Amino acid sequence: MGKIYIVGIGPGCHEDMTLRADKALRESDVIAGYTVYVDLVRDYYSDKEFISTPMMGEVNRCRMALEEAQKGKTVSMVCSGDAGVYGMAGLIYKLSVEYKPMDIQVIPGITSALSGGALAGAPLTHDFAVVSLSDLLTPWEKIECRLREASKADFTLCLYNPSSKKRHDYLAKACGICMEYKSEETVCAIAKNIGREGEAYQVMTLKELAVTPVDMFTTVFIGNSQSRVIDGKMVTPRGYMEKEHGKK
Amino acid sequence: MGKIYIVGIGPGCHEDMTLRADKALRESDVIAGYTVYVDLVRDYYSDKEFISTPMMGEVNRCRMALEEAQKGKTVSMVCSGDAGVYGMAGLIYKLSVEYKPMDIQVIPGITSALSGGALAGAPLTHDFAVVSLSDLLTPWEKIECRLREASKADFTLCLYNPSSKKRHDYLAKACGICMEYKSEETVCAIAKNIGREGEAYQVMTLKELAVTPVDMFTTVFIGNSQSRVIDGKMVTPRGYMEKEHGKK
Repeated sequence: MGKIYIVGIGPGCHEDMTLRADKALRESDVIAGYTVYVDLVRDYYSDKEFISTPMMGEVNRCRMALEEAQKGKTVSMVCSGDAGVYGMAGLIYKLSVEYKPMDIQVIPGITSALSGGALAGAPLTHDFAVVSLSDLLTPWEKIECRLREASKADFTLCLYNPSSKKRHDYLAKACGICMEYKSEETVCAIAKNIGREGEAYQVMTLKELAVTPVDMFTTVFIGNSQSRVIDGKMVTPRGYMEKEHGKK
Repeated sequence: MGKIYIVGIGPGCHEDMTLRADKALRESDVIAGYTVYVDLVRDYYSDKEFISTPMMGEVNRCRMALEEAQKGKTVSMVCSGDAGVYGMAGLIYKLSVEYKPMDIQVIPGITSALSGGALAGAPLTHDFAVVSLSDLLTPWEKIECRLREASKADFTLCLYNPSSKKRHDYLAKACGICMEYKSEETVCAIAKNIGREGEAYQVMTLKELAVTPVDMFTTVFIGNSQSRVIDGKMVTPRGYMEKEHGKK
């Protein structure tokens, strides 16, 4: 039976990978993935076969990995961040029905909400919603609806894919929607190039965020009504009754 | 200057910890945390000093850790899952202003949304919201509002703390709210004892979830309108236009 691991490798630095992910890669015959992610791990597992495909070839990439597994090889499909969160796990499951029997194991990894959050402080200590601003596979109206309802309910928001060359004004539009329900003074943060060269974070208000340039390597945090700045970090308390509770 | 790591140790199994987390624990003089979490790591770092406190002593636990760091020791505060998501990072930042100067480093970990998701399939491949059903620090009305708005916007939901002795009917109430906006046939899953003895998952409909007994070691997934069952796993597609896109 073919065996495929779908491995979340975390933000990019080898240290942010789990021990389980490292073990799966070491056990594998083949490491497959988007070129940039394969290059992030190549030096650590240099005795492996590598299959890498460019950005938009997701379906082909998954098929190539499944075909290798069907031949009896152990294959790891690497995803940046987590294997599931905007990752390849869903697509592998969907395509795998054509390559049965297949042993599929999903190995979770540190998604940018967590790694970016750790860099910027502790923005996600309470309920939060994760929204991708990419409208490649999702109608923009759906994205707007999610930003609106999440803002109404005072969720902390974590935004993935806040910008690209074609979508340079999407973050400003998203901030505009949030400001219909959240104060323009809401504490926000951005985390850039997490776990890679040029890693940086910045804490600001929602109003400032709306005019801050970001790129596709940026993760954005928009606080809830309780989020605050402590020593330059963005911190969301654990609840709405923390103070009283802490006094006990 | 005092040094404190706030370390997400993942779901419980040592392999689900990141290499960075493992390194921080090895570097530390003291490992502090809730007794159950400290016990999960104790055997791997047996040469350390340990400070463990029972469940409700969060503030004291953080103060004890900060005091040790102030004495010049390197301290790791361990959290199950991630250090930020419903973790101790926020509280450490808040209290740390009384223990300056203090070098604080948050080391992210695999939170249950990711580890439970990997176990149940790929439920979080698209936008999702994480909500805790614990009303200890949050008014129940706020929790209801979040479930309602997130359901309206067709988010996949991941529920933490779905039940406890005092709150045995909370999941049923939450499902009732979701069913006002989501189909009762919505694909759902539960993941239990992730990374520990008795690990299990189960895929079911929202209507079935409403009458399924869960405990505090269960993580719950409620799909969006596109979530489906593939080979007994819960899978949410990457978007709403995936089929067309995949055909290109």
